[in-house]
Amino acid sequence: MVNVAIMGHGVVGSGVAEILINHADRIAEKVKAAVNVKYILDLRDFDGLSYSDKFIKDFGIILNDDEIKVVVEVMGGINPAYDFVKSCLLAKKSVVTSNKELVAAKGAELLRIAEENNVNFLFEASVGGGIPILRPMAQCLAANEINEIYGILNGTTNYILNKMIVDNMDFDAALALAQEKGFAERDPAADIEGHDACRKICILASLGFGKHVYPEQVKTEGITGVTLDDAEYADKFNCVIKLIGSAKKLPNGKITAFVRPTVVSRECILASVNGVFNAIMVNGDETGEVMFYGKGAGKRPTASAVVADVMDCVKHINARKYLSWEDGSPDYVDNSVEEKQKFYVRIKSQNYQLLKSEFIRVFGENTFFIGNEFSKELVFISDVTDENELKMQLDSLKGVCGLTVFHTLF
Amino acid sequence: MVNVAIMGHGVVGSGVAEILINHADRIAEKVKAAVNVKYILDLRDFDGLSYSDKFIKDFGIILNDDEIKVVVEVMGGINPAYDFVKSCLLAKKSVVTSNKELVAAKGAELLRIAEENNVNFLFEASVGGGIPILRPMAQCLAANEINEIYGILNGTTNYILNKMIVDNMDFDAALALAQEKGFAERDPAADIEGHDACRKICILASLGFGKHVYPEQVKTEGITGVTLDDAEYADKFNCVIKLIGSAKKLPNGKITAFVRPTVVSRECILASVNGVFNAIMVNGDETGEVMFYGKGAGKRPTASAVVADVMDCVKHINARKYLSWEDGSPDYVDNSVEEKQKFYVRIKSQNYQLLKSEFIRVFGENTFFIGNEFSKELVFISDVTDENELKMQLDSLKGVCGLTVFHTLF
Repeated sequence: MVNVAIMGHGVVGSGVAEILINHADRIAEKVKAAVNVKYILDLRDFDGLSYSDKFIKDFGIILNDDEIKVVVEVMGGINPAYDFVKSCLLAKKSVVTSNKELVAAKGAELLRIAEENNVNFLFEASVGGGIPILRPMAQCLAANEINEIYGILNGTTNYILNKMIVDNMDFDAALALAQEKGFAERDPAADIEGHDACRKICILASLGFGKHVYPEQVKTEGITGVTLDDAEYADKFNCVIKLIGSAKKLPNGKITAFVRPTVVSRECILASVNGVFNAIMVNGDETGEVMFYGKGAGKRPTASAVVADVMDCVKHINARKYLSWEDGSPDYVDNSVEEKQKFYVRIKSQNYQLLKSEFIRVFGENTFFIGNEFSKELVFISDVTDENELKMQLDSLKGVCGLTVFHTLF
Repeated sequence: MVNVAIMGHGVVGSGVAEILINHADRIAEKVKAAVNVKYILDLRDFDGLSYSDKFIKDFGIILNDDEIKVVVEVMGGINPAYDFVKSCLLAKKSVVTSNKELVAAKGAELLRIAEENNVNFLFEASVGGGIPILRPMAQCLAANEINEIYGILNGTTNYILNKMIVDNMDFDAALALAQEKGFAERDPAADIEGHDACRKICILASLGFGKHVYPEQVKTEGITGVTLDDAEYADKFNCVIKLIGSAKKLPNGKITAFVRPTVVSRECILASVNGVFNAIMVNGDETGEVMFYGKGAGKRPTASAVVADVMDCVKHINARKYLSWEDGSPDYVDNSVEEKQKFYVRIKSQNYQLLKSEFIRVFGENTFFIGNEFSKELVFISDVTDENELKMQLDSLKGVCGLTVFHTLF
């Protein structure tokens, strides 16, 4: 029998407890050992549950109980999760977490401590909820050199953008609906400002490229600047707007790492990822592009990913999984250099005729654009170009009073 | 150092040899052991390669060399692959294969022999080429009960259908182009008649549901009956035609298993899977739908999946991976019962006016259809209905001289 403690009995934690307790037989059969939830740590009281007797309020009980071999951390946040996890690993207990904030900030350090103590630190549920992504990346793509990872990493923003695109709903109404449906995370700002996607691209890039990427190194832009007009214009170019997180190797050994609203061609399969679904594209030198798709959040999918990690820990008691990456460094992420690409540009002016003639003067007669005389706007998708060159061209346009530029994916 | 033998030096085998030899350093670092290709078995001569000295023609050399711990079988076909693999496992050598025909026919038996001899039998590359699918199903979805597996399992047919849909190319021309581009497998009949997809759904269902499904138990229909007209009609219903392999649990513990051309709504993400790409949807009780997407074939992707399995064997020398399923049974697959669904129906008659009036008599005035007076055809998508009931209705239509019915995915 293997004894397990769960720290945190929120949405995910209660899901983990339910699966481990209700499906104990199925799990025991698969791992060839009984898995027993001995403690659940939470400061709140939970009376009337079939497992109410397991609750404790003192972390020390878990730490000092040598019978506890696996600890599940599903409290969220850095404090006290970081101290608790570190203490558990140092006490030679394996730890499973769904806490993306913790892994994005402290992953390299915690993995090293796990290695030094010959225990496992697993966090499949921290990216993409129930979508298997970290383990396939580490194992099945073992024979690959990964060059690029990108995708739709946040279900809430994808739901909001989808409502804007399909149902013509404006941003605020779509956000309110997402909150009403319970799709928004505890702090909606973390979703709509891109921080959640940022943490996930950190974890994916760290694992995929072997060196820690910290959230503050990722150039992060949320979806609050995306308007219903942008969604409609994009549609006219056979595109949709998605929040894309991306990390890519550069020839000089550094990487770029971004989260930003991106105009995605409908020819690209990511354009078909709707609602609260996530999709992560991994580009390996041998396999080419592989994509992992599913619901990126939610109690049951996330809890089931945590339980799968617990099962893996139980199977590998006294054996290490090869999961690790180096510490990061300040100059490892370099967002100043980026490949040439197409850009979506929306220009507003106080004089539509001037705007048109200026546009033709700078970009030539043959550049296709959508003009809107009523709103005094002009929208176009540039040729493949250098971002700085495009900005110089845009700066030279006279009479511009508003400008939106989005990167694209074609 | 771990010694490896490769049996077969065709497309995949040569790719495996190249990766193992050219990327030896990267691989050694990841598995913490040198992996040495000691023999390559092939009846043909391969002079002038940097590793021409490794070729042998006698299987006995591999079998009797105790230094060989891992054997790669990439010969294809059942004979002699089956005998060779069985002998290797009995000699306590782990085996890695990409041979879907072998695994679909003999998987349960070979897994049992591997277990009895405490070695591994891995075959990630047998489904979806370089797409990680079997291992994520077995491991990450460990906490899930899998209910359904379906998807686009054959890149060649998907390429052909895509050319018909997008480029208006007829079946024969699209097939010729696929062959010219080298997308067709050695035997194109295996692709277009659905046998390749059938073998893959057997492997997926066996692993996902825990009991062997044999190819002859799967109701298999290829794409040779799909016409350019069907592709065009489907488009008018905002659908595309895809070859879908599917396996689903029934409430009575049995399963259904099919491969067939299916009319897929563009609302479904599988409709956006184009070209030679594969996409496999797995429905778990906790995670909901997760999809794995990528190029399903090709030398490099498939070879890299084989190499990843070899690396896993090397890491698990003397340790077993929990991968197994029971023997099948004749009555386990029951294709007589299927859920109600919509159907795509194309009816041809010698008298278009009679066809229309007969259609309205049987299906009512409000059933939408697309009529084609010139070709004397009428196409409609039925309401959600029972297949037998629909067939009775269709049988009662007078004057019908041609009928096409496809299942749908909405």
